[in-house]
Amino acid sequence: MELIEVNRENGRAADALRPVKLTREVLKHALGSCLVEFGDTKVLCAATIEEGVPVWRRSSRAGWVTSEYAMLPASTNRRSKREQGTRKGRSMEIERLVGRSLRAVVNLKALGEYTVTVDCDVIQADGGTRTASVTGAWVALHDALALWVEAGKIPRLPLTGQVAAVSVGVVDGACLLDLDYTEDSRAEVDMNIVATETGEMVELQGTGERITFGRDRLNTLLDLGDAGIRRLLDLQNEVTAFRSEDED
Amino acid sequence: MELIEVNRENGRAADALRPVKLTREVLKHALGSCLVEFGDTKVLCAATIEEGVPVWRRSSRAGWVTSEYAMLPASTNRRSKREQGTRKGRSMEIERLVGRSLRAVVNLKALGEYTVTVDCDVIQADGGTRTASVTGAWVALHDALALWVEAGKIPRLPLTGQVAAVSVGVVDGACLLDLDYTEDSRAEVDMNIVATETGEMVELQGTGERITFGRDRLNTLLDLGDAGIRRLLDLQNEVTAFRSEDED
Amino acid sequence: MELIEVNRENGRAADALRPVKLTREVLKHALGSCLVEFGDTKVLCAATIEEGVPVWRRSSRAGWVTSEYAMLPASTNRRSKREQGTRKGRSMEIERLVGRSLRAVVNLKALGEYTVTVDCDVIQADGGTRTASVTGAWVALHDALALWVEAGKIPRLPLTGQVAAVSVGVVDGACLLDLDYTEDSRAEVDMNIVATETGEMVELQGTGERITFGRDRLNTLLDLGDAGIRRLLDLQNEVTAFRSEDED
Amino acid sequence: MELIEVNRENGRAADALRPVKLTREVLKHALGSCLVEFGDTKVLCAATIEEGVPVWRRSSRAGWVTSEYAMLPASTNRRSKREQGTRKGRSMEIERLVGRSLRAVVNLKALGEYTVTVDCDVIQADGGTRTASVTGAWVALHDALALWVEAGKIPRLPLTGQVAAVSVGVVDGACLLDLDYTEDSRAEVDMNIVATETGEMVELQGTGERITFGRDRLNTLLDLGDAGIRRLLDLQNEVTAFRSEDED
Amino acid sequence: MELIEVNRENGRAADALRPVKLTREVLKHALGSCLVEFGDTKVLCAATIEEGVPVWRRSSRAGWVTSEYAMLPASTNRRSKREQGTRKGRSMEIERLVGRSLRAVVNLKALGEYTVTVDCDVIQADGGTRTASVTGAWVALHDALALWVEAGKIPRLPLTGQVAAVSVGVVDGACLLDLDYTEDSRAEVDMNIVATETGEMVELQGTGERITFGRDRLNTLLDLGDAGIRRLLDLQNEVTAFRSEDED
Amino acid sequence: MELIEVNRENGRAADALRPVKLTREVLKHALGSCLVEFGDTKVLCAATIEEGVPVWRRSSRAGWVTSEYAMLPASTNRRSKREQGTRKGRSMEIERLVGRSLRAVVNLKALGEYTVTVDCDVIQADGGTRTASVTGAWVALHDALALWVEAGKIPRLPLTGQVAAVSVGVVDGACLLDLDYTEDSRAEVDMNIVATETGEMVELQGTGERITFGRDRLNTLLDLGDAGIRRLLDLQNEVTAFRSEDED
Repeated sequence: MELIEVNRENGRAADALRPVKLTREVLKHALGSCLVEFGDTKVLCAATIEEGVPVWRRSSRAGWVTSEYAMLPASTNRRSKREQGTRKGRSMEIERLVGRSLRAVVNLKALGEYTVTVDCDVIQADGGTRTASVTGAWVALHDALALWVEAGKIPRLPLTGQVAAVSVGVVDGACLLDLDYTEDSRAEVDMNIVATETGEMVELQGTGERITFGRDRLNTLLDLGDAGIRRLLDLQNEVTAFRSEDED
Repeated sequence: MELIEVNRENGRAADALRPVKLTREVLKHALGSCLVEFGDTKVLCAATIEEGVPVWRRSSRAGWVTSEYAMLPASTNRRSKREQGTRKGRSMEIERLVGRSLRAVVNLKALGEYTVTVDCDVIQADGGTRTASVTGAWVALHDALALWVEAGKIPRLPLTGQVAAVSVGVVDGACLLDLDYTEDSRAEVDMNIVATETGEMVELQGTGERITFGRDRLNTLLDLGDAGIRRLLDLQNEVTAFRSEDED
Repeated sequence: MELIEVNRENGRAADALRPVKLTREVLKHALGSCLVEFGDTKVLCAATIEEGVPVWRRSSRAGWVTSEYAMLPASTNRRSKREQGTRKGRSMEIERLVGRSLRAVVNLKALGEYTVTVDCDVIQADGGTRTASVTGAWVALHDALALWVEAGKIPRLPLTGQVAAVSVGVVDGACLLDLDYTEDSRAEVDMNIVATETGEMVELQGTGERITFGRDRLNTLLDLGDAGIRRLLDLQNEVTAFRSEDED
Repeated sequence: MELIEVNRENGRAADALRPVKLTREVLKHALGSCLVEFGDTKVLCAATIEEGVPVWRRSSRAGWVTSEYAMLPASTNRRSKREQGTRKGRSMEIERLVGRSLRAVVNLKALGEYTVTVDCDVIQADGGTRTASVTGAWVALHDALALWVEAGKIPRLPLTGQVAAVSVGVVDGACLLDLDYTEDSRAEVDMNIVATETGEMVELQGTGERITFGRDRLNTLLDLGDAGIRRLLDLQNEVTAFRSEDED
Repeated sequence: MELIEVNRENGRAADALRPVKLTREVLKHALGSCLVEFGDTKVLCAATIEEGVPVWRRSSRAGWVTSEYAMLPASTNRRSKREQGTRKGRSMEIERLVGRSLRAVVNLKALGEYTVTVDCDVIQADGGTRTASVTGAWVALHDALALWVEAGKIPRLPLTGQVAAVSVGVVDGACLLDLDYTEDSRAEVDMNIVATETGEMVELQGTGERITFGRDRLNTLLDLGDAGIRRLLDLQNEVTAFRSEDED
Repeated sequence: MELIEVNRENGRAADALRPVKLTREVLKHALGSCLVEFGDTKVLCAATIEEGVPVWRRSSRAGWVTSEYAMLPASTNRRSKREQGTRKGRSMEIERLVGRSLRAVVNLKALGEYTVTVDCDVIQADGGTRTASVTGAWVALHDALALWVEAGKIPRLPLTGQVAAVSVGVVDGACLLDLDYTEDSRAEVDMNIVATETGEMVELQGTGERITFGRDRLNTLLDLGDAGIRRLLDLQNEVTAFRSEDED
């Protein structure tokens, strides 16, 4: 992998993640919760389960997993307005992405007619809030479903695997993993990758912000992303012991 | 003070506050921030300062202090809906209360044409979110103004004093200080008191939820509240060293 | 009671109400209606009863009493915008206050699964619209319920008492009863008291607009308020003959 | 005119208006106000004047006259919901009609860069609220403009004439003037006519609700309407003495 | 008919329609569709049928016909904003007019408990979009109902007749048929006539934009309109063969 | 390229586009317009130019290009509700994608302080409305900018290249180009590619709807997409003669 020498904050290497932390059980009322930190980016993920499913899912006899995403006004550099009245397109795009990513590893039939909502509320934003959200949301989802099993509501964990996400991008010509805000805001190419523990992708979203990108660039970025996601999946597994569970 | 023997969680006395914590500087981007905890109630208060004032204040040549209040969906017992589209009357009532309380101790002329917004976002709710908000918001406000002074934007701290708040109420016939959620939801009388370090009140809001209340009851409740607020003001002073500052 | 000599419009004494009028049966379609006048403040209160209760009350097998409050655009000094799209926090605060006040004297179980809505529409505003609303709303509520009894829908009046409200405040250092708009807009302390015919309070809301207030001030204001409310309750009784009814 | 023998409430003739009352100066704050009554239909019309004109009128150097229309919830047979959030098409249609009708008799150039808003708030509805609104709105407009002249803001009354409105319709095959609610709700043809004191029309809106209508029917209805409007114009003139004013 | 010599675009006579085209079956998914062109005005009318009727119609055991109207942003001279959030009064007025016009020729009982929605979306606007909408909407409605009969959902076409609409007006003192945008925007009187094949009117809406209008003017305009509508009804019949159908 | 034998409508090959048509100058008022058809999918793209730029772009001294996307209610299989009040997340996602894609080939500095809005209104939907929108929007944009040059508003065409888009996906295990609605709704992987005439990508959005996808699959899909986009770019060039222009 041709990685140009770059100057990143704290001497971070081009292919290094920021310090990542996954703290579980941070909320009293939510069934599952996880404070996920990718460096200075902090997102509070909370999973709750309600009986029933949305009207348009009723005939399916299966469950539903959805997500909501919002930023606290003071989470950003300049205070951002609360989304009352009109939703921002960006927030709706992100919450749709998180929902699709989680559903990729849930057996909705096995879940039964319950709706899991994972709220991702950004406490502090420093780039990568959507990838942190996916990564933390999986932990919150796991914990909520595990409690649901414990409570005897469903016979076994309806999770078919793990899912995590990371950003990659081209900044000043260099391919970088896990962009922070200052990198992201001057990135030439910006890409978000969501993948499972099989190494296959669930979502791939790349945008050439100032330049276009060819197949070679794409492949370098995907290699970077794969490696980053592997580390995030390991960390998820470490805190939840999901894979060993799974083996039972 | 006639305090009936009561059974409160963790053996708390009728005139005892829950464990209170004021943690400053919890956010990177906000000028001032404070995570306030009244037992399991946790509110993130963040103060930001913007140039200019609302249109209707323009002619005054003075500043403005305002507040916004919201609850994270997973902060409550049952997941609560995000206030997109329509605001809840309750939230608007609380943010108006916080704003008025803070303005009672700010010299708006001395602030100059700046608007301070203190966002109070409830991370976890267990009763008393509005009184925790007022108490934590003052700390965030203090810290933001102190930085503003440091930055040379204003010559000196435009704070004329401290302000804190506590709830009192009648539960099963007993007068209690600082109600938690289970107490609050079965309270017969529910009262919020906002006061300054002079011992005088800024706001007093009492509601007979199931019974009415007479003057004796009122006086017992006010005595309880006074004592609680004195302790909260001391704690604020401890973390910010405001009063000694003031003496300079 | 230490009442400073004051100059009020029309030579009104510090402890005098403005001329109060309660005119019943002013609307053809509403079950109960009352035009309440506190001096130049005029509020049209109209009570209507509908079958059923809000969703969240369904399991209770009891009724519900609620209120809506709005000001006609031309009711105020400067034309105020209609609340289409966004509600004002102030209006929502007032309608919640009126609703709670009325429910304090209604036996909701005895009402049965009906919803009473009391609309308070301000025709002309000159201070005290919320206290006039509570006072007039009780009359409209009484009349609607009385007709409901007459119609055989409920066996007896589910009212447990009367409720009325008045404002008190500190203006230029003097404690005054029933503030008009010019007094209210320069009041140092502004307080609304809602009480029943037993002399006990249902609601107490005090705000130090420019100064804080201590216990002595509070007591003087409460004394003033008590006396005012007694006169309002008498007037309500005069027009509805409620207490004699009650004795049957 | 072939008028079939009909049975109307209170023995009213087919070509008779309901009792009409125009009461001026009913509001303290509005520059001009008029409570208009067409039988049990009661509309409060209030005219206020503000400096400036809407953005899209700015280049015209002329004034603007507009109207807003709403019904109090308790004004109708069944309580109607407040129009918060979404406006009703019907209300917008009516306020556009009132605005156009008034502008037909105002010299906007002579008015100068002021905006007159005439609020028409229906206190009680019994059919014909839009025609009562036009008729009463003219009186409120007249009075506001007269005060504006008195205040020296404009040299002379910028009114070029009077405008009034009435409904006509076909009910059970009979042509009737000034329909009340029960007539209106079973009318086969429903028509609103707005005309000036010259006898010419400003607006004509006819709808065949259940049947279609030919030219003969139309002419009979127009004759009925002409006569009714002449009487309304006389009444307007009586209360405002506009025509004699005009002669000066 | 006294028709002043006038200069219209393309040498059009005062009593001439613009070239009219009715193109059926332009949409794949709608049951009935019609692109209607009145000169440069182009409206896409699409009729869809859904099971059930609006709540307030339920007890009637009859069907419902309604319409929605909107303009594409680029359909107008200057790009117009999309009506998201707030609807324009004008659009609501037009869709109510189209709905009433169509219902005048539908036997709702015979339709049964179905709701027909006719969407009228203006592709290009050059005056007369509401009259083109009514005229094209009838064709779309006819075709949708004919397919519904074919599908065996209803035994026979529940249409009692045809309905079409045209505008007439006074421009520079001359009475003109079918005003285009430049004529409409300087018209002194502007009138829309909706009529059936019996020659009787369903709707008549006239407005004196700058002048008032008397009975003579009205009659000249109605004569012009009658003739125009007759030609539109013939054209509708030509493309749908409705009248011969009817005779079966 | 391993392309499995597949059964597509009309015997279409796995790597074949549906019949594509780009019809220019379909609207009278828009500066540039293009009706784009990808089989039964029809989108009307209209470009208008307004003076000035959004507030947040003001300091840049450069222009702005944005897009709005909506579907006519009758464009879809089942009538879809108009997006009044609340926008759909999907529509906002698409209009953001179209805007970014167009900006990738516009020199905003050279455009100067103008805002180009390209409205993409879906007349008929049969899969691929977002890729058809990007492809047609470029033509409308080109034509609007060309007229702007002709009008002397800008010295030369500020386009740096062409942009087009196509969908690819995995359906029943087979990799397909340009999915229609029935293919899209059962696709296992769904991907949208936006690229320029240099063969490089501007946007890449892939979603595993039911399965995840690895790097091999991705490469096969990208190859399919590249070929499809090349043909679309040729077609764009054919109708606008852009590349020869460019050479001048």
